[in-house]
Amino acid sequence: MRTRAAVAVEAGKPLEIMEVELDGPKAGEVLVEIKATGLCHTDEFTRSGDDPEGIFPAILGHEGAGVVVEIGEGVTSLEVGDHVIPLYTPECRECEYCLNPKTNLCQSIRATQGQGLLPDGTTRFRMLDGTPIHHYMGCSTFANHTVVPEIALAKIRKDAPFDKVCYIGCGVSTGIGAVINTAKVEIGSRAVVFGLGGIGLNVIQGLRLAGADQIVGVDLNDDKAEMARRFGLTDFVNPSKVEGDIVAHLVELTKGGADYTFDATGNVNVMRTALECAHKGWGESIIIGVAPAGAEISTRPFQLVTGRIWRGTAFGGVRGRTEVPKIVDWYMDGKIEIDPMITHKLSLDQINEGFELMHKGQSIRAVVEF
Amino acid sequence: MRTRAAVAVEAGKPLEIMEVELDGPKAGEVLVEIKATGLCHTDEFTRSGDDPEGIFPAILGHEGAGVVVEIGEGVTSLEVGDHVIPLYTPECRECEYCLNPKTNLCQSIRATQGQGLLPDGTTRFRMLDGTPIHHYMGCSTFANHTVVPEIALAKIRKDAPFDKVCYIGCGVSTGIGAVINTAKVEIGSRAVVFGLGGIGLNVIQGLRLAGADQIVGVDLNDDKAEMARRFGLTDFVNPSKVEGDIVAHLVELTKGGADYTFDATGNVNVMRTALECAHKGWGESIIIGVAPAGAEISTRPFQLVTGRIWRGTAFGGVRGRTEVPKIVDWYMDGKIEIDPMITHKLSLDQINEGFELMHKGQSIRAVVEF
Repeated sequence: MRTRAAVAVEAGKPLEIMEVELDGPKAGEVLVEIKATGLCHTDEFTRSGDDPEGIFPAILGHEGAGVVVEIGEGVTSLEVGDHVIPLYTPECRECEYCLNPKTNLCQSIRATQGQGLLPDGTTRFRMLDGTPIHHYMGCSTFANHTVVPEIALAKIRKDAPFDKVCYIGCGVSTGIGAVINTAKVEIGSRAVVFGLGGIGLNVIQGLRLAGADQIVGVDLNDDKAEMARRFGLTDFVNPSKVEGDIVAHLVELTKGGADYTFDATGNVNVMRTALECAHKGWGESIIIGVAPAGAEISTRPFQLVTGRIWRGTAFGGVRGRTEVPKIVDWYMDGKIEIDPMITHKLSLDQINEGFELMHKGQSIRAVVEF
Repeated sequence: MRTRAAVAVEAGKPLEIMEVELDGPKAGEVLVEIKATGLCHTDEFTRSGDDPEGIFPAILGHEGAGVVVEIGEGVTSLEVGDHVIPLYTPECRECEYCLNPKTNLCQSIRATQGQGLLPDGTTRFRMLDGTPIHHYMGCSTFANHTVVPEIALAKIRKDAPFDKVCYIGCGVSTGIGAVINTAKVEIGSRAVVFGLGGIGLNVIQGLRLAGADQIVGVDLNDDKAEMARRFGLTDFVNPSKVEGDIVAHLVELTKGGADYTFDATGNVNVMRTALECAHKGWGESIIIGVAPAGAEISTRPFQLVTGRIWRGTAFGGVRGRTEVPKIVDWYMDGKIEIDPMITHKLSLDQINEGFELMHKGQSIRAVVEF
């Protein structure tokens, strides 16, 4: 079949909107009509050419929602008409990782996914001239239709609006999951969140959901404070306006250090600050942001020997097929908010404008609707 | 009173054995006759002058056992004749740290202890010419008699031999506690231990106690393997004899990475290797060793984002007054071994020979008996 897609033809170039050929689903695969997709920094990291593992040409996008159009042979958990969210972290429920309760990093299709291919080692997309187009993070939601493995689709309720719950495919789950699954924040905790963008805001609402007493947000842009307060922020700190050491300032503000800190900036210097403002004896720091290629985190080991813990999280520790439907329920039940974070709606033709908004810091989330 | 002590008169100089004046215990303090004390690398770190926080003159030593000779006003948990192990990490059971189940780092007397003083801000030791001598880690066990706060003494059974259980005052508790309290190793785990000295061997017997399936020891000295096997080691790796990447070698040996890794070397490069050979998704690495002043650990944040956890431990997460008596019981009941690790017995006059043995790698633990 033919469908319309935004294709990353070459590293560093704007996406090109074009008709592409899409083969139907093979065994264990599902053809999905994408109804809406968010634009995430990770897409931009790859598009820009900064991602050393980026493969081109490819159809990017990993934060979508849509409807099942056709199922491949042997698919049993989904049927035509089901509403789904594609998962860049699948959940096969059979591999060593899925069977270990400590991780969500299903490895069953990892190798091919990393190569921009479906599990059988081929791609379903090609240009009209026959050039194969790679998949991206197993999702490729910047296309009106895409083919995704069954194990990489979360079935969600049909009354959930696509243009909002698509955000649960990455940002919402990552932020809330970092709090609930990775940090396991307890009621009454004090927390510091670095970076009040699309992930940081979801960390903040995760902390509110978890009953944190103090939620400190740190950002260089004062304008971020107002929106963050709406999601539960209690204290705002602009490090450029703090005299002296930012760690000492945050330790004082949290009365000895935070029980939990979160980096949602991807900046390795900020990651160090996040660790070091965690409370001596028990403070945990969780890295969410993706750092530039080759960048390294550092600290004195004394920081860990005196009880701080350094962790990271991918997709918020969320097991997608199991937990994403629950997070959709939380949204529909009003336990979490998404609407105010969807600041821009675009058509597929406007997708490059979405990346410009991201660079200018004008959007929290821009969503493309098909 | 007068007592004999090995005094660190100046950084980098051998200890000097001399008679010193010792004042009796003030309120909340206890006079202890030290019967035996181990020599630990931390003592040597300070003696040598490498410890930037070292204070001189001081009476070093923090791994002792002895008998209560006199109690100060208000002391209620100990009486004359009780057998005790001094604790460099006290347990007041009242401070914010003691009341938080996540840490053992009692802070109640931290400030004065760090200054080489007892909680009232003074020292009980002085030279015969009146020069004050500082305490060390709140213990100063390189003296035949010492004064220690009540909250820094674990009361132990009277049938336990001083020349063995003194080692529980630091090395044994640190190694076993790192496994049991900090890592919380589960039955069937795979583990890698870096450094098979006095701490590493205790990590290994802690892993055996915890029911680990695979216990890999890594050391540059092949001679360390034999003793380590006695304590439970299943695989020995000498990194100088591994061709290619040591991380890849250890990941292969542990079939995908270790569930738990422990650094007992104090070398920051080894700490990085320890983290990176932990299993993707859930592997935890615990830093035990004390690094040189200013040294930093580094890694790519991706190591944490893909599920590895970096921790540290001090005194093995052991709450001394509560847990040290239990560890003494484990030794007396044969659940753990100490005797083969006490490789040398010395008199106080021979204490500097003990540090030479340490430097030559000839001793696991040298113990001074009074």
